[in-house]
Order: sequence, then C-alpha cells, then structure tokens
Amino acid sequence: MQMNLGLALKLIETARAKADEIGVPMIIAVVDAGGNLVAQQKMDNALLVSIDISLNKAYTAVALQMPTHELTSLAQPSQPLFGIHNAVGGRIVIFGGGFPLKADGTIIGGIGVSGGSVEQDMDCASSATKLLAGILKR
Amino acid sequence: MQMNLGLALKLIETARAKADEIGVPMIIAVVDAGGNLVAQQKMDNALLVSIDISLNKAYTAVALQMPTHELTSLAQPSQPLFGIHNAVGGRIVIFGGGFPLKADGTIIGGIGVSGGSVEQDMDCASSATKLLAGILKR
Amino acid sequence: MQMNLGLALKLIETARAKADEIGVPMIIAVVDAGGNLVAQQKMDNALLVSIDISLNKAYTAVALQMPTHELTSLAQPSQPLFGIHNAVGGRIVIFGGGFPLKADGTIIGGIGVSGGSVEQDMDCASSATKLLAGILKR
Amino acid sequence: MQMNLGLALKLIETARAKADEIGVPMIIAVVDAGGNLVAQQKMDNALLVSIDISLNKAYTAVALQMPTHELTSLAQPSQPLFGIHNAVGGRIVIFGGGFPLKADGTIIGGIGVSGGSVEQDMDCASSATKLLAGILKR
Repeated sequence: MQMNLGLALKLIETARAKADEIGVPMIIAVVDAGGNLVAQQKMDNALLVSIDISLNKAYTAVALQMPTHELTSLAQPSQPLFGIHNAVGGRIVIFGGGFPLKADGTIIGGIGVSGGSVEQDMDCASSATKLLAGILKR
Repeated sequence: MQMNLGLALKLIETARAKADEIGVPMIIAVVDAGGNLVAQQKMDNALLVSIDISLNKAYTAVALQMPTHELTSLAQPSQPLFGIHNAVGGRIVIFGGGFPLKADGTIIGGIGVSGGSVEQDMDCASSATKLLAGILKR
Repeated sequence: MQMNLGLALKLIETARAKADEIGVPMIIAVVDAGGNLVAQQKMDNALLVSIDISLNKAYTAVALQMPTHELTSLAQPSQPLFGIHNAVGGRIVIFGGGFPLKADGTIIGGIGVSGGSVEQDMDCASSATKLLAGILKR
Repeated sequence: MQMNLGLALKLIETARAKADEIGVPMIIAVVDAGGNLVAQQKMDNALLVSIDISLNKAYTAVALQMPTHELTSLAQPSQPLFGIHNAVGGRIVIFGGGFPLKADGTIIGGIGVSGGSVEQDMDCASSATKLLAGILKR
C-alpha cells in the first residue's frame, strides 16, 4: 500500500473531525514516503505558523521514522540530539503532533498536525493513525 | 465574503474534476488574501515540481493582484518587470496557471494549478474561478 | 524495481567510465523517486559548482519527469516555462545532463551529471541510462 | 596527501561495512579540506534526515577542525559556543558522528555518518578514520 490523495484526504478528514470535537482550529498535512506533500488543509482561524509546522512535523516523522514527540526529550540541552532542530534547514520539529504512517511495517508517509497544544495536536494526528490502522486490518 | 476552507476545497474539487477530464494529474493550491496556504492537493502521479509551483502561482496571483499569465510578457527581457521572478525568494511564477480570486471587487485569495502544459493548468484553474463567479451570482 | 544504493553505484560507475574516456572530471548524482539523494561522487578536479548542479539535474529530471535538456527551449525568454529555473528555490536546472530513470514505465529516480559541456554531461548520463535499460531487459 | 575520490570511496566502504555489521542503515558523506562534498552514499532504508545531517557533520568537522561530539558540550546553554548550531545557515551539527580527516597533521577533509544512535554513528565514522590512519602508517 502506498500513499495516495484519496487516503491522505481521509486521514485529514479524520483529524479535522477530532479538531472540531475539541474546538480548536488546526492545520493538517500529509506527506508521502519521500517526505513530499500530498495534501494540506488549514481550518478557518488556525494559526498561520501552523502551515509550516504541520508540514514540517509530517516531514520530520518520515525523515526520522519516528513520532515527533519522541524527539522532544532527545533534543533537549545535554541530550543526544540537541541541535537537530537546526540541522536540516529548519525543517525538523521536535515537539509532538507528527507521526509516521505505516503499512505492513513500511513507512508510506507521515501526518503532521499543528494549531493547538501539543497534546491536542497529538490527539488529532493519532485519530488519523488509528483510522489507517483500521483500514489496514480490513 | 472571505476565503475559508470550505470554499477552498470546492474550488480544488472543481479544478480536479477538470484535470480528471483532460487526463493530467495536477497539483492545486488555494491561498487566502494574505497569500497564505488554505488547502493544497497533489493528484496521484503529479509532478513533484508542481508542489511548489502550484502554491507559488496562487501566491503570485495574490501578491501581484493579477493572473500569472499576465506576468509572462511583463517579465521578459527588456520588459518592465524583467527579473521579478528572482526578486522575492523565488516565489514569483511568471507563467500561466495562477489566478486571483475576487468577491465584490476584492481579492479574497488565489488559486494555482501546475502539472500539465500552461494551457492545461490555466484551464483547470479557470474552472475554479468560474465556480466562484457562479457562487457569487446566486 | 525500486532505486537502491547498489543500482545507484553501478549507474555512477558507468557514467564515470564515460567521463574517464572523454577525459573530463565530472560530478554524478543519483536520486530516488522522491527526489532524495542516493549517491553522489565528485571526480578529482571536477568543478565545485557541479556538486549542486549535478544533484539538481537529477532532482529536476524526477520532479519534472523529463530530461533536463528538454527544458532548455521551454524555459527560454518568450517560451512557455520561462522563469521556471527560479520557481522552486533554485533547484530546477534547465540545461542538459539530467535524465529520469524508468523501470516498467515508472520513474524510479533520476541521474544528473555536471562538469563538462552540456553534450559531454549528457553523454555520461546517457551511458548510465543505457546501462539501466540493459539491466531491465535481462 | 590530499582527499580524492578513491580515498573517499574506501573510507565510505569501511564505514558501510561497520554499519552492516551492527545492522543499521547509515548515510555516509566525505568532504574535502574546503568542506565540499567528495562522495556520499545512502544505504537502503536509511533515514531521509541523515542525507543532510551526514553531510553537515562532515562539513562541521572540517569547518571547526574538531570532531562534532566535542562540540556537544561547548554548544550547550551557558557554554561558550551556545547558538553555533544556528550561526551558519543550519550547517553546524553539534552531536557526534563527524570527524576531521588528517594526514601529517593537516586536515585533508572530513567524514560524517548519520542514521543510528550517536554512538553507532561515531563507531562507523571511527572505523573510517582508523582505516586512514592505517593507510598513512604504511
């Protein structure tokens, strides 16, 4: 299974539904396995800064093959990856809200959500990764 | 009337339908009056380069308040705006496929389409501007 | 068939052999279908500028799904894509030496060669695309 | 002795053998005394982010004439070089995996490895610096 626009739109719709539920406007981005944008949506009144952050969260999750919240502790001062947020032209996001998207153990893309608190961003993104897990189980 | 996600998705859907009709995978971007992304979609197998170009066409149409194909002649060597494609960090596109989106004489955003020939890109983007005109007449 | 390091190194070795034959030091880059670097080699005394140009040629060939020499005429003043060399952060190269790499009609990556005249660059890159064609025929 | 492509490929091959031994796909870059790329290889399934990080580690080791892991403590908050990871367009990496390459007390280039833990990256890069030391003793 590879990333495609149809899947990306379903994932974004799911994350948006969660954002609507908690009442926070989000920006949601999905990239493919090469880190390239497939789809992105800005909910009305979402933070402008979240355009770049959501896309970069999705990119980071693919580029580092891990959820962005796992980077948070690793990138603190004195920790092994301190400084990584500056090592790739500013595209690495080191707080939560980005998740790799996997099918059969392979990364097919990533999703990034930005606009609320880190926990809210993660909740919205997680709802999309759960949808994918459900699709894959069928 | 202001740009919002609901409108942006309708505009993109219309441009996608046109792209499907002519059989060319496109990338379509809609920005708001501030030139900021509202939504973007990459149809499967569309050119990677069109991710940036579609978004930059939409941005250019808002930033210069004109369709990008009107820039083509203005930006030729010896013409008044020669060099403008280089003047804003590489975000100005000087060939067709980007249109400002207007309501009541005011620019509310822009649409950019990339993936086919310039004429094909313009056709897809125009189908979306016509949809907007129809919505506004109601 | 997907791009992998083993294939990339064979393609580069072939292009290098051609460069040795014509006596011009080249830089050769191979990217995957996502436009991301797989391998790059700078022959001794090759032009520094060719580091970026070879990689960007390979990227351009994938991102636009065409050999870079086909862009040359399209991107001249008064032609349809004039300005494209500035539309994507300076990564688009509009002269020869970049080729998409295809397997079964699908683009699996791209190769870019820089260091000599455009014709010499194209000769070296072509020797690699011919190798790939031979491998696929087996 | 100066850096050349033949030496760079031997160094990369050695680092790759170590990466194979520990079972982690790495990206390995070698730059010359000018900080410019000589060769780079991405092992299959290595992290995308490691393309830039490996090259920037090699660059940093040359540009600062020290292994990148020695920067780690110097670049912490309150320490003398805090902020350096931000001072050169994002090219300075402040964690381990980059080493200068010396011959007769002179820096002839640098090697950078990325893809595993900092310790794994350093192990792979060290195997290459040891190879160079061995070559020089002959």
